[in-house]
Amino acid sequence: MAESKPVLIDGKWRPARNAGSFAPADPAARQPTGEIYPVSSLQEVEEAVEAAARAAEELLGVPPEDRARFLELFAARIEARRAEIVEMACAETGLPKKPRLDEVELPRTTGQLRQAAEAVRQRSWTLPTIDTRSGIRSMYGPLGGGVVVFGPNNFPLAFNSVSGGDFAAAVAAGNPVIGKANSSHPGTTRLLAEEACSALAEAGLPKAAVQLLYRTDHQVGQRLVSHSLIGATGYTGSRQAGLVLKAAADRAGKPIYLELSSINPVVILPGALRERGAEIAGEFTASCLLGAGQFCTNPGIVLLLRGAQSEAFVELVKTKFQEAPVGTLLSEGVQRSLEQSVAGLQRAGAELLVGGRAGGGTGCSFQNTLLRVSGSRFLAEPEKLQQEAFGNSSLLVVAEDADQAAQICRALEGNLTGALYTARNNEDEALYNRLTSILRYKVGRLLNDKMPTGVAISPAMNHGGPYPATGHPGFTAVGIPASIRRFAMLQCFDNVRPERLPPELRDKNPGQVWRLVDGTWTQADVLPKS
Amino acid sequence: MAESKPVLIDGKWRPARNAGSFAPADPAARQPTGEIYPVSSLQEVEEAVEAAARAAEELLGVPPEDRARFLELFAARIEARRAEIVEMACAETGLPKKPRLDEVELPRTTGQLRQAAEAVRQRSWTLPTIDTRSGIRSMYGPLGGGVVVFGPNNFPLAFNSVSGGDFAAAVAAGNPVIGKANSSHPGTTRLLAEEACSALAEAGLPKAAVQLLYRTDHQVGQRLVSHSLIGATGYTGSRQAGLVLKAAADRAGKPIYLELSSINPVVILPGALRERGAEIAGEFTASCLLGAGQFCTNPGIVLLLRGAQSEAFVELVKTKFQEAPVGTLLSEGVQRSLEQSVAGLQRAGAELLVGGRAGGGTGCSFQNTLLRVSGSRFLAEPEKLQQEAFGNSSLLVVAEDADQAAQICRALEGNLTGALYTARNNEDEALYNRLTSILRYKVGRLLNDKMPTGVAISPAMNHGGPYPATGHPGFTAVGIPASIRRFAMLQCFDNVRPERLPPELRDKNPGQVWRLVDGTWTQADVLPKS
Repeated sequence: MAESKPVLIDGKWRPARNAGSFAPADPAARQPTGEIYPVSSLQEVEEAVEAAARAAEELLGVPPEDRARFLELFAARIEARRAEIVEMACAETGLPKKPRLDEVELPRTTGQLRQAAEAVRQRSWTLPTIDTRSGIRSMYGPLGGGVVVFGPNNFPLAFNSVSGGDFAAAVAAGNPVIGKANSSHPGTTRLLAEEACSALAEAGLPKAAVQLLYRTDHQVGQRLVSHSLIGATGYTGSRQAGLVLKAAADRAGKPIYLELSSINPVVILPGALRERGAEIAGEFTASCLLGAGQFCTNPGIVLLLRGAQSEAFVELVKTKFQEAPVGTLLSEGVQRSLEQSVAGLQRAGAELLVGGRAGGGTGCSFQNTLLRVSGSRFLAEPEKLQQEAFGNSSLLVVAEDADQAAQICRALEGNLTGALYTARNNEDEALYNRLTSILRYKVGRLLNDKMPTGVAISPAMNHGGPYPATGHPGFTAVGIPASIRRFAMLQCFDNVRPERLPPELRDKNPGQVWRLVDGTWTQADVLPKS
Repeated sequence: MAESKPVLIDGKWRPARNAGSFAPADPAARQPTGEIYPVSSLQEVEEAVEAAARAAEELLGVPPEDRARFLELFAARIEARRAEIVEMACAETGLPKKPRLDEVELPRTTGQLRQAAEAVRQRSWTLPTIDTRSGIRSMYGPLGGGVVVFGPNNFPLAFNSVSGGDFAAAVAAGNPVIGKANSSHPGTTRLLAEEACSALAEAGLPKAAVQLLYRTDHQVGQRLVSHSLIGATGYTGSRQAGLVLKAAADRAGKPIYLELSSINPVVILPGALRERGAEIAGEFTASCLLGAGQFCTNPGIVLLLRGAQSEAFVELVKTKFQEAPVGTLLSEGVQRSLEQSVAGLQRAGAELLVGGRAGGGTGCSFQNTLLRVSGSRFLAEPEKLQQEAFGNSSLLVVAEDADQAAQICRALEGNLTGALYTARNNEDEALYNRLTSILRYKVGRLLNDKMPTGVAISPAMNHGGPYPATGHPGFTAVGIPASIRRFAMLQCFDNVRPERLPPELRDKNPGQVWRLVDGTWTQADVLPKS
């Protein structure tokens, strides 16, 4: 049997203080990848947390330029090792090398790291606020302890705990990161951490600024996120595991940002269906089955109004779901969970239109699945019928009328997104207004005439939303600079001597930092008072 | 026996669906004020929450100008009823009418309301972010349900649940408020709510935009903050009661902003003591005994380094504490709790230097109290010796040397403030740098050569800090516009038709709103793409 891979603690790759081990699998081949990874003990977690706390203090003295260089060197190193990383990610996740991993996700990952570097250099994410009258100045700064990042299974690169969006944001804010690899792709995470480690040395950053653990049991994980020396946690993953961590972090008063579950309602109004039902059926099918539906913004529920146009739409979608190829799922676990979720929706009263059984594709897979339920049935079991079925499945809800559609919107939990399709003329406008006055509060991102998959990296993006989509509706996980401020604290300086202020708050602007000076956003220096 | 006062639910003053009653007391006279107030039942809470949810939807259609007018009309009405409000607040809290209530706190309260009105009109608090390339636009907006505000006992006007900082911020963000009066000053809260209610009608706002309950039992309070129709909660008060609410809100995924406890370390370095020890002793005594020490930013712990200059400082402060008049405490409860806290500090090893017993002033009171403990003892019991003693009491910690002082800083929990006094020449600089590199992460506001009491209303203020000072280190309870964003969600609009966008996100700037357009802060319109 292969030896268990080492963990990365305090700058050293070393054998784990082993509390067990696990063997990742190739979901397409349905067999182990051949590597063995360790489960970390409580002692190891303590060591990592303490090393991160020391690194946090050291990072306070590291100029932004060096942190920016680290992020850029890291991006370049990922590109240099591209083939090996893509190979490993493909073996561990079953995601296609091209275009997905090599041409979409890897460039997105390095692009995010470079955007974070730019933000570090530019410093405007700190929102410096200067009140010259009172002598009070404030800005966002690092948390003073490690940020723990739990990466999800569905983006082995772009949301990876040691290279993804949370990682980039936490480092950009000036924090060390303790990565907790997703157990389904530890090898990919190891390769990325190796490059991060080398980039740290090259840029002269503290060696404990990036650490990596592969797995812990629940109790050790709870200790990790609630440790007094930890700054905050970023978690993307299953609702069940996330809530265990949330409870622990909340009890300790430690911020935890979670992306838990979202069914991303898509409302298609009658005018839109009459006008371009077939086109929308195509868009919906493509969005729902993309990557075997394994996206947090997958359209998991479609709201229609009773009528001939909706029936025609349902028939069209059925055919498309039957005809579309079935993708490979990320793991046996995802397949099992999808089976259970679809069965749960049926038990709650949803009728199976298409699919509903395991298999149909290469390796781990599940037939493309479409379910249907009436609006009244949905309203009788709103909680059960809103359970996320992560994968290539969606539930069509057909409301009796506009009033019932509004009630259904009101019964929705928090979601990352909500999309509405309406006619190009104004015939759907009254209903659009009525439903969005409700939906607007339920979703982080409201879309028009567009499916929710595809989360653009934009400073205006909100990849967040009310619980249970996330743990707090005021933060986004995608979109620099806002995503950086999740891993920051507000620091105020009152009567602090000018030479002791952080550079961002001194009279002289340290670069082209946007600062709110006496109510005006400006990149200028603060002028001496006359 | 007097009849129980009515509650304010859905625009009506009506008898409570009574689950009991309570009688507030005058702490200076140590006798009941003569009024009786109701405890609200679960049913009443449900009614308030549902009315608030309806009001939240209605508020979406109310122009900012009307919300601003409401806040201004309310401020004017408070001023018109000034004498009666001040009289009642004095009777319920024992705080002096002049200067405190009439000349300081009331103007601060109406000033905050007017600042909030200005922010509503100006709209820049929403941080509109426009990405013209991707068609994605986002901003902060209301939460879509009522905001529950629990006011503290120590600011009957400026932090009152229906007129204080949280109230103003929640309304400014566009949310209805359900005020939970502090049980020690229900009469003051009632008078304020009466004026709020009239101002709502005058400004044409939904009648349920302000509601008032006086008291609930713990279970009903937990239901209130965790209700699915609630947007968020603001709480200022005791750590114990706050943690019960926090647990309930956290479990439900509902944001809760808490101000729980803070001992506000003041570090006085040897050079500063040699240079101006007597002056600092005066400042410290005044700050610690102001308002009988009943401030969240009261200097509850002073860190000194062993040496002759520190001993001289201690002797000076002892004399000043003995000579200073003893203030009236807010209630029997505050007196009892202060007795217990001081006893707890002594049990943990602190030596009593001055005071330590109930009495000494008019009505509810406790002798001005000074305790002392060695650095090593402090480090042996850091948790017990950091218990907040709310009132006119402080603990002097004398460290052996610089290393121990650094260890003590490291052992501190999160605080609202941390102050350092250093010599005017640079002799304390090395130690200042060493200690602030630790303290900076532990406090929301770092002060130089200044006591922490007196929280200026400034856009750069941070009245917040790491747990247990608050529940999240990224937010401030004082300082418009940042304080408003606590009660807001990030709302993103992706491909939304221009005429459907909120005015703040349309190409044409609806006024002089500061917006981040393609990375540049500007008040200009977005120009059509060429």
